[in-house]
Amino acid sequence: MSKPLTSTVIGLGAMGWGAAVSLLRAGLPTRGVDIRPDVLARFDAEGGKAFASPADAVADADVVFVYVVNAAQAEAVLFGDNGAVTTARPGTIFANCVTVAPSAAIAIARRLEAAGMVALDTPVSGGAVRAAAGEITIMASGPSAAFDAIAPAIEAISARVFRLGEEVGTAARVKMINQLLAGVHMATAAEAITLAARLGIDLKTMHEVISASAGNSWMFENRGIHIVDGDYATHSAVDIFVKDLGIVRDEAAAFGFPTVITEAALSLFQEASAAGMGREDDAMLAKMLADKVGMPAPGRAPEKDKAS
Amino acid sequence: MSKPLTSTVIGLGAMGWGAAVSLLRAGLPTRGVDIRPDVLARFDAEGGKAFASPADAVADADVVFVYVVNAAQAEAVLFGDNGAVTTARPGTIFANCVTVAPSAAIAIARRLEAAGMVALDTPVSGGAVRAAAGEITIMASGPSAAFDAIAPAIEAISARVFRLGEEVGTAARVKMINQLLAGVHMATAAEAITLAARLGIDLKTMHEVISASAGNSWMFENRGIHIVDGDYATHSAVDIFVKDLGIVRDEAAAFGFPTVITEAALSLFQEASAAGMGREDDAMLAKMLADKVGMPAPGRAPEKDKAS
Repeated sequence: MSKPLTSTVIGLGAMGWGAAVSLLRAGLPTRGVDIRPDVLARFDAEGGKAFASPADAVADADVVFVYVVNAAQAEAVLFGDNGAVTTARPGTIFANCVTVAPSAAIAIARRLEAAGMVALDTPVSGGAVRAAAGEITIMASGPSAAFDAIAPAIEAISARVFRLGEEVGTAARVKMINQLLAGVHMATAAEAITLAARLGIDLKTMHEVISASAGNSWMFENRGIHIVDGDYATHSAVDIFVKDLGIVRDEAAAFGFPTVITEAALSLFQEASAAGMGREDDAMLAKMLADKVGMPAPGRAPEKDKAS
Repeated sequence: MSKPLTSTVIGLGAMGWGAAVSLLRAGLPTRGVDIRPDVLARFDAEGGKAFASPADAVADADVVFVYVVNAAQAEAVLFGDNGAVTTARPGTIFANCVTVAPSAAIAIARRLEAAGMVALDTPVSGGAVRAAAGEITIMASGPSAAFDAIAPAIEAISARVFRLGEEVGTAARVKMINQLLAGVHMATAAEAITLAARLGIDLKTMHEVISASAGNSWMFENRGIHIVDGDYATHSAVDIFVKDLGIVRDEAAAFGFPTVITEAALSLFQEASAAGMGREDDAMLAKMLADKVGMPAPGRAPEKDKAS
C-alpha cells in the first residue's frame, strides 16, 4: 500500500485513547470517535480527527478499532443509527477490542461479515498506562491476511500479540478465562489484605513476602499494592468485573459448568456496585470488607470522629 | 561455638526430609525422627542418626526443627509421652516449621517457654524439590539472638529468609495469608482450566498467554501447568488446603471477618477430600469439576468405554 494505513478508533476511554494517541505517534492518520465533546477537543489537540458519530469517521478507514465498554455498545456503534457499517467501505477490517462473551464476539463478527466487512477478535489487556505507551497485550484471532494488512497499526498500539488462530471467538474465550482469574485474584487480594490488616499484620512487609511466595498473583502484586498503600484512586472500575465475571457465569452456565469461586468473587463485586461503588476502583472491595467489621480501609489511618 | 551446631528434625515427610538431608549436606550433625521404619532406614543410609521417638533424639540438640503435619501432631511430638521437651536441655531452640493457626503458634511457643525452651515461629514454603535442595523460603519471627545462634542450620535449609520481627505469631499470620491466597488461586486455576477445556480452548496456548497476562498467579503458572499437561501425580495433597483454608476460616471467624472467597475454595477442597481424594494432588479438583459435567479430566484424552 502506498498511502499510510488509516485507522478509526471508536470509544476514547482509557484504553481507546491510549490506542488512538499511539497510532498518531506512529505517524498513522487516525480518526477518533466519542460522545464526550471534551474528549474530542483533546483528541483534536493531539492532532487526530475527532468525530461524534461512527458513520462520519470510517468512510476512508482501512481498519476500525472498537474500544467501547460492552457488547451492547459495540452493536450500537457498529449496527445502530449512524453505526460504522452504514458508511464503511466493503472489506474494511474491524478489530473488536472490547471484552465480550465469546458468543457475542462471534455474533458481532458474523453481522460484520454479512455487511461485507472483515472481522477480527482482538481483546486487549494491560491498563491505561500501557495503552498510552502503545504497549498493550492483544489476544488475537481471525484471518491472518487481515492481521498482516493492519500490521503497522497493531505494531503501534501493542507490545505483545498472541496469535490464537484463524477463528473469531478463540481470542474472546482466552480473554474470558483470563478475566475469570484476574477478577477472582483481585477480590481475593482484597479479602486477604483486609484480613491481614484486621490481624494487625504489617501490610507492606507482608506484601513484599507474599509477592515472592506461592501466594502471589499478578493482581496481588500490581493492584493489591494500592490497597496496601491506602490508594483507592480509580485505576479499574468495580463494574468491569461485574461485567466480565457475569460473562463467565453466563457462558459457563450454558454448559452446566459450576463456577463456585467465580460466583463468590462476583457476589463481592456486585455488592460493591449495588452500594454505589460501581465506577470506583476495584480496590474499594477492601474498604467494603473493612466496613463490615468496623475498621478503616486497609492502608489508611482511622478516620476522625466526624461528630466531634 | 567450637563444636558444630547439632540439629534434630522431627517429621521426615517431604519437607522435613529435605531439611534434614540439607543439614547433613552442610556437614552439620543431624538427628531425624519419624514413625515410619523405612524412612528411618533411608535417613540412616544418608548418614543421619535416626530415631522413632522425639525424646531419644533431642538430648544433645542445639536446635529442633518441627516438621509434622498440623498443630495436634506438633503438640504430641513436643509435649506428649516421649515428647521432645521431656529430654531437651533447657535453652534448646525449637523452630516450628508447621503451618498452624497463629493462635496455635503462640500457644505452642508459650508452652515451650514455660518448659525452659526458646521458641521460634518459622513456617516454610517452596515444596519438596526446593526443600531437598536446601532452598526453601522461611517466614521467620521470634528472638533475634536465637536466629543468630542457629544461623548455620538456617543457611543450610533455605534460600531466602524473611525476618518478621521478635514476636512469635507474626510469621504464622503472614503464612496464613499466603495460604489463603495460594489455596484460592489453586482452586481458581482448576476452575478456570477445566472451564477452558469445556469451551474447547487449546490449554497449552492459553496457559502460555495467561502466564504473561493479568490473570496469572504463581499457582496457575507453576501448578496449573500440571493440569494442562494431564499430570495428576501427587505434589501437594488436597488435605493440606482443607487444613490451611480451615485455619483461615476459623481465625477470621474469631474476628467476625467474612471470607466468602476462601470459603468457596475451601468447599471445593472439602468436597474432593470427602470424595476420597484427600491424599491425592490438589490438581484433582480439576478432575472433580470435569466429572460433574461428564468430560475427561483436562489434559487427558477421553477414557475408552470400559463396557465395550
